[in-house]
Amino acid sequence: MATDNASPATSDRARPEIDVRALAEVLDGEYAEIRDLVRTNLVTHSSVLEEAEELGLDAFRERVREIVVEMAATGQTGMGFPREYGGGGDVGASIAAFETLAFGDLSVLVKVGVQFGLFGGAILHLGTRRHHEAHLPDLIAGRLMGCFAMTETGHGSHVQAIGTVARYDAASREFVITTHGDQACKDYIGNAARHAELAVVFARLEVGGKSEGVHAFVVPVRTGGEVAPGVRIEDDGLKMGLNGVDNGRIRFDGVRVPREALLNRFADVTPEGVYTSPIENPNRRFFTMLGTLVQGRVSVSGAGIGVAKVALTIATKYAVRRRQFEAEPGAGEQLLLDYGLHRRRLLPLVARTYALHFAQDAVRAQLHDVFSGTGDDARARRRLESRAAGMKALSTWHATRTVQECREACGGAGYLAVNRFAALRSDSDIFTTFEGDNHVLLQLVAKGLLTDHAGEFEDLDQLGVVRHVAGLAVGTVLERTSAHKLLERVRDLLPGGDAWDQEAGLLDPEYQLAMVRYREEHMLAGVARRLKRGIDREGTPGAVFSQVQDHVIALARAHVERLLLEAFTDKVRALPEGGAKAALTLLRDLFALSTIEADRAWFMEHGRLTVQRSKAISREVNDLCREVRPLAVDLVDAWGVPPEMLRAPGLVG
Amino acid sequence: MATDNASPATSDRARPEIDVRALAEVLDGEYAEIRDLVRTNLVTHSSVLEEAEELGLDAFRERVREIVVEMAATGQTGMGFPREYGGGGDVGASIAAFETLAFGDLSVLVKVGVQFGLFGGAILHLGTRRHHEAHLPDLIAGRLMGCFAMTETGHGSHVQAIGTVARYDAASREFVITTHGDQACKDYIGNAARHAELAVVFARLEVGGKSEGVHAFVVPVRTGGEVAPGVRIEDDGLKMGLNGVDNGRIRFDGVRVPREALLNRFADVTPEGVYTSPIENPNRRFFTMLGTLVQGRVSVSGAGIGVAKVALTIATKYAVRRRQFEAEPGAGEQLLLDYGLHRRRLLPLVARTYALHFAQDAVRAQLHDVFSGTGDDARARRRLESRAAGMKALSTWHATRTVQECREACGGAGYLAVNRFAALRSDSDIFTTFEGDNHVLLQLVAKGLLTDHAGEFEDLDQLGVVRHVAGLAVGTVLERTSAHKLLERVRDLLPGGDAWDQEAGLLDPEYQLAMVRYREEHMLAGVARRLKRGIDREGTPGAVFSQVQDHVIALARAHVERLLLEAFTDKVRALPEGGAKAALTLLRDLFALSTIEADRAWFMEHGRLTVQRSKAISREVNDLCREVRPLAVDLVDAWGVPPEMLRAPGLVG
Repeated sequence: MATDNASPATSDRARPEIDVRALAEVLDGEYAEIRDLVRTNLVTHSSVLEEAEELGLDAFRERVREIVVEMAATGQTGMGFPREYGGGGDVGASIAAFETLAFGDLSVLVKVGVQFGLFGGAILHLGTRRHHEAHLPDLIAGRLMGCFAMTETGHGSHVQAIGTVARYDAASREFVITTHGDQACKDYIGNAARHAELAVVFARLEVGGKSEGVHAFVVPVRTGGEVAPGVRIEDDGLKMGLNGVDNGRIRFDGVRVPREALLNRFADVTPEGVYTSPIENPNRRFFTMLGTLVQGRVSVSGAGIGVAKVALTIATKYAVRRRQFEAEPGAGEQLLLDYGLHRRRLLPLVARTYALHFAQDAVRAQLHDVFSGTGDDARARRRLESRAAGMKALSTWHATRTVQECREACGGAGYLAVNRFAALRSDSDIFTTFEGDNHVLLQLVAKGLLTDHAGEFEDLDQLGVVRHVAGLAVGTVLERTSAHKLLERVRDLLPGGDAWDQEAGLLDPEYQLAMVRYREEHMLAGVARRLKRGIDREGTPGAVFSQVQDHVIALARAHVERLLLEAFTDKVRALPEGGAKAALTLLRDLFALSTIEADRAWFMEHGRLTVQRSKAISREVNDLCREVRPLAVDLVDAWGVPPEMLRAPGLVG
Repeated sequence: MATDNASPATSDRARPEIDVRALAEVLDGEYAEIRDLVRTNLVTHSSVLEEAEELGLDAFRERVREIVVEMAATGQTGMGFPREYGGGGDVGASIAAFETLAFGDLSVLVKVGVQFGLFGGAILHLGTRRHHEAHLPDLIAGRLMGCFAMTETGHGSHVQAIGTVARYDAASREFVITTHGDQACKDYIGNAARHAELAVVFARLEVGGKSEGVHAFVVPVRTGGEVAPGVRIEDDGLKMGLNGVDNGRIRFDGVRVPREALLNRFADVTPEGVYTSPIENPNRRFFTMLGTLVQGRVSVSGAGIGVAKVALTIATKYAVRRRQFEAEPGAGEQLLLDYGLHRRRLLPLVARTYALHFAQDAVRAQLHDVFSGTGDDARARRRLESRAAGMKALSTWHATRTVQECREACGGAGYLAVNRFAALRSDSDIFTTFEGDNHVLLQLVAKGLLTDHAGEFEDLDQLGVVRHVAGLAVGTVLERTSAHKLLERVRDLLPGGDAWDQEAGLLDPEYQLAMVRYREEHMLAGVARRLKRGIDREGTPGAVFSQVQDHVIALARAHVERLLLEAFTDKVRALPEGGAKAALTLLRDLFALSTIEADRAWFMEHGRLTVQRSKAISREVNDLCREVRPLAVDLVDAWGVPPEMLRAPGLVG
């Protein structure tokens, strides 16, 4: 199944032969069945790609609801719920389904995420049997639509500061839910503007005049299509994209719900008005609650990767079809993908997409273990939360960047709505913001690294981090990451003496891993030292943190990129010898070296790259692009994006 | 007029005071009057920003046409045409007007560009008196709408390869225009789907069986709203954005036009069928024709800068209003712009926007001189064409990147259509492609540098470049850019001996200039050497060029960034002492050092930055961001984006 239009081979290595079907099986893995069900469902409803343009706002929203309910009937969307309520009882499969759904219209995807992931997930994970019995069967079937009312106009990623209040009225045994001011409106809430009957509302609980922190409540917002008394809902209106999802703004004017409306898995209020919780520390309680929602981030991470796959499939197929400018006299015009620059634009993105795919496999497996109870302890949860945050940030930025590069690589044709880039671009733009702003998430990742996952997962507030690092923990971090120790550990990896990194082969996976590991550890030590120095100089924590913020973000990126390379390397190692292994080895090398190349200034600044070696890496990246070029079409075909989803009549034929 | 919410001053330098009105006068410069007319017109028609969402496709297209015609009546859109036909007779003013128009709805902008820039510009510059008299008065008034039919489905930036043919039929004294195959359809043509009555059609001229290359013809495509016989027009339909512009696909089936339809400024056909031209070399003739259309690129460059200004104005105002997370205990939440990371995200973009603004002033002045005949020689034209291409590429990429960063910096609110990012994002996305794909344009820039503007401006084909460079010219280029010479010239600039660049102050403008000049010259020599080496090794020109393509692009970027820094530095030098000069000095430093920082790997690889100095530059960029922070609102206010154009109710209040 070699690619047509292959460029002349210039490599020393033999060109691998890829069996696309076999590689697709490797990629789909244990979830091939559910992924194929989703592919079938996508093709069944592929007309939605056109309807997204043709229908008006209201009609499109109804159409998307209809599709979501039809998909629910096939079992596709309920995989993550217990079997006793009609679910599939397989958390990993539910994520795999969502990842695959991202090949199609993204309003359908996000509506599924809102209904089954956020709303259903909150009922499942924050509620107890009474909530499960009352709501799960209906919501899994799509008979009961709900929304997840956490974000407020004034508070997005900083959930602890939300302004909605739920006061317990012991006399009536009810909670009274009130929106205090415009900034406390629940905002951008999917399903709110039209379809939700129930809302899971996050509010600050007040019992007997005392604030007990943020908790979640089930609140009816519509009955028989009419907005409930005391509830006001505004439509957020047209958005840049995702217009099949009815986002809205909700305000509560003293809405009363019974005591049982509190989702009481982690805290409860007795009828008499006594607050109880098995988790004593309020911060820990809050983050335990939020932590159960981690699957939202893992899902969005997978969706970002899916979006990048669609864009790269279109752009790669276009680039082996479109000719432009003569390369040799009389030879006719040259294929785009035979230009060095075009390969440089697309192929490292293909490699990074593969890296993200394998790292997503790993984080999905962790999620599955934790939520299936097979690997659920506090440490595993924190590791999962950190990885989910980091993957979500890097995957969604990758999606944004990839869609943009691919659109440009398809020229004017890429701009027509009849091709998919317009929708991909507009619909996925918000991925970098929802489920946690990427910059906030990366700070969360860095915080986990700085505290070495030893402390409690307290609030996201930088104060805690600064104090912690400037206090007890800094010694440990600095000790663990001292330059001396770092070098020692790196030497252990590569038995090359002091000059290990000057002599190792660029294509030696141990070299590549040592480089990204060294970078992460060095950055970690650097951030810790900077925080400590700032505090020692009596800077205020705010000013200190503000000054190191770019280092914090760099550290988190370095950490996630290390995870990507490890996942890619592990996957390649585990494969049997053959074409797929050879091809993925090339791609792994391309990912590793283009990642090091992108940050080569840092490696030079920190003595890990000589000028000569830095230049050699750039040359090697070019060589690898040339070697990957004849495999490009097979590599994107193996992702299994249904041809109906490409919807690029002028681009891929 | 100091900014509210200023962060604590941490700088050694005194904080400059900005008089916003005075700075605005500096920025508007000699074209303040036309810019203010455009601002007034934008405010008059500001409802179009809402109508873009509310109206259906057809109604929105009609509305945009209506606005364009109303703007034309104020004289705004005809500034570039001779007074004798009802124009303003001021080319520079016409560009300034277009730049300012980019603050508003971009469909209006692009419709103006199509009608007056492309269609009108072709009639003016490629036609002669008979065409001017017949069409200019009507088209300037907007009574006659036209389109510019150059791009084909199969050929975008490679115009010389287009497939439409115009055969001269001496018997009837007519040209017969025919579309040969689907790939030769004129495509993405603005004004084609609905409004154009006339088209300027680019086709390969055949006279007496001989092909004479690409020429332009005036062809009626509609009469009284009906498509003309032999012409078929398809609607390109919905696009990612710019849906107020009716793009379409045109096919000609032997359409006959009289001999006089040839726009005959540079070539003609006698009634008997003899081809004549004052320009003997066919390539030179072709590029002379295309060269007259350079104002399209200068216009789009200015529009990209305008788009970036709107996005940064919204994001900056939001960042001094929105608070999130506590920085100090009990101090309440902190303003976004007081976070180090947020400053890093926005302020270097503000600095680069200023740099682009001043460089745009320079290229607009060159255009004005060339087209007003005061500075029109072959060398000046080539320089102008090169700068226009380079500016267009860097400005439009800057716009894409800036809109994206600003949308993310405004979170979920930035995603609602009620704020402007949705439209800015979708409408401006194609700027990187139209008027020449940015990558193709940068190759054109590099080619000019490689041939030192000495040769003819022949075809864009890389063959010519490779042959030229591998041939005679390479000696000159290599000699001029030899490492020895380079260092000598750089030393002349900074009297610091061999260690000049290790000792100079980072804020010394001569140091900053020397760095970007050195980079450009070194890259130029590197590309020339690589091309020569490739040819010496008997590589085919196609393969050789493909291998150096990324160096070619890097060279062109380095060249344009050098021009930006020179323009910025010249501007600051020319200002009288005072707050504006002090503020722009900070901003110039921020632009220069963040530009060097972004490419610090290159500077280290080429011995021009030590590790210590590289790190010092990053620290200085952070310091500069802190110093610029209290000036940020004044700096964006000085751009004079009318508040009605910000349309960000939830963001800027």
